[in-house]
Amino acid sequence: MKYTKLHVIKVGGNVINDATMLLPLLEAFSKLSGYKILVHGGGSKASEVAQRMSVPVEMVEGRRITNDQMIEVVTMVYGGLINKQMVTQLQAMGCDALGLTGADANLILSQKRPVKSGIDYGWVGDPIQIDVKKLRLLLDIGLVPVLAPLTHDGRGHILNTNADTIANMIAVSMSSSFEVHLLYAFELPGVMRELSDPNSLIKVLDRTYYQKLKSKGIVSQGMIPKLDNAFQAIAHGVRRVCITKFDNIHLLASNDEYTTIS
Amino acid sequence: MKYTKLHVIKVGGNVINDATMLLPLLEAFSKLSGYKILVHGGGSKASEVAQRMSVPVEMVEGRRITNDQMIEVVTMVYGGLINKQMVTQLQAMGCDALGLTGADANLILSQKRPVKSGIDYGWVGDPIQIDVKKLRLLLDIGLVPVLAPLTHDGRGHILNTNADTIANMIAVSMSSSFEVHLLYAFELPGVMRELSDPNSLIKVLDRTYYQKLKSKGIVSQGMIPKLDNAFQAIAHGVRRVCITKFDNIHLLASNDEYTTIS
Repeated sequence: MKYTKLHVIKVGGNVINDATMLLPLLEAFSKLSGYKILVHGGGSKASEVAQRMSVPVEMVEGRRITNDQMIEVVTMVYGGLINKQMVTQLQAMGCDALGLTGADANLILSQKRPVKSGIDYGWVGDPIQIDVKKLRLLLDIGLVPVLAPLTHDGRGHILNTNADTIANMIAVSMSSSFEVHLLYAFELPGVMRELSDPNSLIKVLDRTYYQKLKSKGIVSQGMIPKLDNAFQAIAHGVRRVCITKFDNIHLLASNDEYTTIS
Repeated sequence: MKYTKLHVIKVGGNVINDATMLLPLLEAFSKLSGYKILVHGGGSKASEVAQRMSVPVEMVEGRRITNDQMIEVVTMVYGGLINKQMVTQLQAMGCDALGLTGADANLILSQKRPVKSGIDYGWVGDPIQIDVKKLRLLLDIGLVPVLAPLTHDGRGHILNTNADTIANMIAVSMSSSFEVHLLYAFELPGVMRELSDPNSLIKVLDRTYYQKLKSKGIVSQGMIPKLDNAFQAIAHGVRRVCITKFDNIHLLASNDEYTTIS
């Protein structure tokens, strides 16, 4: 059986915060042909809005907690402002975008993260179920889902959820009926041996090489969970995982300036 | 040809602002059988958020202007907070809600309101086109659209749009393929001759009677555009327009405590 290709693109905070990167990303995304899903992170706007609204930032052991006021702020900023601005811009580019959270159409059900080692993260959720059939129905009527990093618990609560985790879980879940290509779009051409050296792009990264880079401290702190996710996706049926520059996502077939996880 | 019944429910600010009314409205809506669409207004939360963010309120000749900062606030509050909280609560009640703005799936294209008599309303839009086919596709896959009072201009701008106008235009547009029942849900049983007298409910309101009530000043200022809209909807193919209490919308078949526009 030959599966249809589906691109799942994850775009993170740094690109979202900067219109000079976000617009080229959206243009590249709108040019990508075939079935596609965009998953976006939060960016710094939520902190800015929280500060302007004098919402107190609650931290426990150096980690931000999503308290009652903060879940309202991220629901506004992620589910409203960022998501709807992206949808509106994609529509202007001729891409039939549909903005969603995991609560919409019950697409992503999460479990509120349990209190562990005395840390209560508040309204944070870890996805437990993706409605693959419903996502497929939306794709089949020609829509392009644009997902905000919010899910729900099925009991009336919105939950703040990591966008990498959402992208990964969608990619893995959709592999049962699509040939899934998962792309992480960010500000660099891919994984670099040295951030300052554009010639140090790692074009193919396998587990052995990754372990070596990690043990030498070459892969940075923020990249480690992303790459762990990437290897896990490959192990669970995703055809290809690439880490690439935001304005490059529609050119992967004709270009070799990106990192493929294998 | 026998058309399928479609309920279009409009719920306004007063009900949205108060959880003791909003939850019963959502419960009644979730119990309503068959095809249905919910259109919600803004409520007072946007003003509250604007104030907390020190967003200056711009007024021209007594009317609020949606300036650059205010369109961000209403996009956050209407498209994010209010819409997603309603969707999440409806999902918990077993209703497969899908939160939308007019930008999503290009459902409602608007024209930015032109400057008239020296008044520039800013980012305010008047709907010019509803994608009836797309709305029908969403209904046909079992989803329940929940629409925020936001549309777009097709050129990358989100526009603040009157929720009564959206509900009305959806009801009229969908009449080409559905038997549409348009219900305005609010805090009273219907149109009252005297607000303080529960026995003064007007059960049937026709144009002649409406003109009489208007000329006597019995119909209040805020109700006039709503009723004008209602008569216009009937004239343009909507089967029935009712004005009813928020917790009553699922009982109209078995109850006669509401106002029917005829």
